Amino acid sequence: MQPYPSKLLEQAVNEISRLPGIGRKTALRMALHLLRRDTSEVEALGQAVIRMRKEVIYCNRCKNISDNDVCSICANLKRDQFTVCVVEDIRDVMAVENTNQFGGVYHVLGGIISPMDGVGPQDLSIDSLLDRIEMENITEVILALPTTIEGDTTNFYIARRLNRFSVKITTIARGISIGDELEYADEVTLGRSILNRTPYNVSI
Amino acid sequence: MQPYPSKLLEQAVNEISRLPGIGRKTALRMALHLLRRDTSEVEALGQAVIRMRKEVIYCNRCKNISDNDVCSICANLKRDQFTVCVVEDIRDVMAVENTNQFGGVYHVLGGIISPMDGVGPQDLSIDSLLDRIEMENITEVILALPTTIEGDTTNFYIARRLNRFSVKITTIARGISIGDELEYADEVTLGRSILNRTPYNVSI
Repeated sequence: MQPYPSKLLEQAVNEISRLPGIGRKTALRMALHLLRRDTSEVEALGQAVIRMRKEVIYCNRCKNISDNDVCSICANLKRDQFTVCVVEDIRDVMAVENTNQFGGVYHVLGGIISPMDGVGPQDLSIDSLLDRIEMENITEVILALPTTIEGDTTNFYIARRLNRFSVKITTIARGISIGDELEYADEVTLGRSILNRTPYNVSI
Repeated sequence: MQPYPSKLLEQAVNEISRLPGIGRKTALRMALHLLRRDTSEVEALGQAVIRMRKEVIYCNRCKNISDNDVCSICANLKRDQFTVCVVEDIRDVMAVENTNQFGGVYHVLGGIISPMDGVGPQDLSIDSLLDRIEMENITEVILALPTTIEGDTTNFYIARRLNRFSVKITTIARGISIGDELEYADEVTLGRSILNRTPYNVSI
């Protein structure tokens, strides 16, 4: 590979290519795109990213990203404050919120236990979850973590630490997606969907 | 879509998603990735991008991106200064340089004529190409633009404006890629590769 014709360009490409999923060719394409934009637009991008990193706050209670000490979901007293949905990160909060099916509050772990990536329980907000359960009379904890080895490990770890509390622990249902054909479903999912079958409700 | 839990996050996502090929979901993933990085890393990214946009210079002669008034290729007197390869942007310069087969100099148009995107000849460095041909005794202009309608239009436009000079105009060879099977080649390429067949050299 030839050297870049400009050190400034090279530095920008180096930095952009550290973003997840961005290789050097894509980074170069982005840098050239920015060179064609107005200086003000490029400044807006650079400053927005720096400001976000410096000024964003995490909710005291659920560790969700927030502009205030307590996020808008925790501050909403119409929500059921005794049902806590435990998720990996804020994207999962947004996904669950999009369903409009959950009226409780969240607890954002900030990751899942993954020894391969050097993430242990102490790196996640698990202690603060236990504090909340102790202090806030939480009645139900819904584990909504991914079905990977890391997700299962984290579920197991949290469930064991919750042993000493009389809190109900549930996990989101796994099964065949709405609209999917049974013949194309993997056996584990189909098997689980039969084991965890639900009563058929004849309503209207 | 639910609102973002933080205005700062939303602004960062808005700005990142203006990059080419980046949707809002990818932008959110990148923003969350940056939130987990050190502040210094995020500042390095933001500053590198802003500095590049503000401080990068274009070579006086060939309009390539440069750190100096004249880029390293133009300043290299070992190169043939009378053969000019006309390319769309700096990525094409890097691609041709990577072949190690070109010893001449470049002229970077900064785009191609594309009425759909509002890019006309006056937006490209075509006038400066004509100035160069007049002033520098250029003997050959190699057109190395993409084979799209826009590329062909640009080729045609440049060739017509070069009419009044006694400069040789060539274009890079189009044909079957090395290693490709004839049966999978498209007819236009295969047809052209027969029309523009080259003498077979038996050398060692």
